[in-house]
Amino acid sequence: MKYYDLPASPNARRVRIFMAEKGIEIPTQVVDMMKDENKEPWYLAKNSLGAMPVLELDDGTCIAESGAICRYLEELHPEPCLMGRTPLERAQVEMWHRRAELEFLLPIISIFLNTGKMWEGRRTQVPAWADFVKTQVEQSMTWLDKELDGKDYLAGADYTVADITAQSAFVMAKAALKMPIPEDLTNLNAWWDRVSARPTARA
Amino acid sequence: MKYYDLPASPNARRVRIFMAEKGIEIPTQVVDMMKDENKEPWYLAKNSLGAMPVLELDDGTCIAESGAICRYLEELHPEPCLMGRTPLERAQVEMWHRRAELEFLLPIISIFLNTGKMWEGRRTQVPAWADFVKTQVEQSMTWLDKELDGKDYLAGADYTVADITAQSAFVMAKAALKMPIPEDLTNLNAWWDRVSARPTARA
Repeated sequence: MKYYDLPASPNARRVRIFMAEKGIEIPTQVVDMMKDENKEPWYLAKNSLGAMPVLELDDGTCIAESGAICRYLEELHPEPCLMGRTPLERAQVEMWHRRAELEFLLPIISIFLNTGKMWEGRRTQVPAWADFVKTQVEQSMTWLDKELDGKDYLAGADYTVADITAQSAFVMAKAALKMPIPEDLTNLNAWWDRVSARPTARA
Repeated sequence: MKYYDLPASPNARRVRIFMAEKGIEIPTQVVDMMKDENKEPWYLAKNSLGAMPVLELDDGTCIAESGAICRYLEELHPEPCLMGRTPLERAQVEMWHRRAELEFLLPIISIFLNTGKMWEGRRTQVPAWADFVKTQVEQSMTWLDKELDGKDYLAGADYTVADITAQSAFVMAKAALKMPIPEDLTNLNAWWDRVSARPTARA
């Protein structure tokens, strides 16, 4: 197998953390997006959308989309379990995984794309949209703080792929958008300290 | 079990089509969003985000997020299979399901929220964002047309949840946004005719 990576991408990071939690090591090739390597024919043959990450199997089959790569690795390496052990647990982890993506990861990436200096001239930026999304993410942080009352992790007692996706989103919010978790959100800050202390957090 | 539904929502529709394909009948209660029923305490207790659909189990446990509901129903009712039979198939269906969501469903809902008359005064609308997303969706339709060359369905030979999500997105694009599939995209139109002809398409 081979992992096509983009070090700064929260999508690539969440798969790296997932692999580190599983103890899986896969040879990695960085794709240089700033040099448009991801739009070259050899890469488009692996993912016609030109996005990272991609997991290439030994027979050349390629799996794109972070959630799909995690699911494949979960089936091949069930332990430690990161996506639930029963049908209900798996549904609840998926619910929280979707919430982490829809309330945090995708909006935070959208703010970055619509305001980031590295994207000026490379794509259309709509700052008014970023302003709106920023208020949405702030509201979602308040919502998640309440949801974490009495829980260690998003889906309950166990650390799962939902936490990995949320922490990858918060890394980008903090580092690239200067949107740290507000201090008064004590449950969310306690969760953040908990996930950030894991040896895999910097994968 | 009980299904909390919003008839016009593409998210609620994709779960209805999924249930119809499986031959599952679940008592349904419509939640009237225009009367803010989804913000009432009894509903927020089922889904604190106030979104539809929700699947409530007999013990009162609630599963929100369409993808999570489909996964739960797939495990309880494996036939007909809609999410893949092997680890690789399941990863490929998930890849295409994500692509259907990220390239079509979420952008199309975003256009609707940012331009729809029913949302005026109910939420912030950024028409410039909708204009940008519209061109993205048009490009994605061209991309999908190429991807469907030689394939009957998104993930390959079998109709899956990825098709269900894409067709639910295209229903909204056609009916609410007046964005039909361009006539020259022959593979995409052939796919659309194929999925629309299924007896479950109007679920």
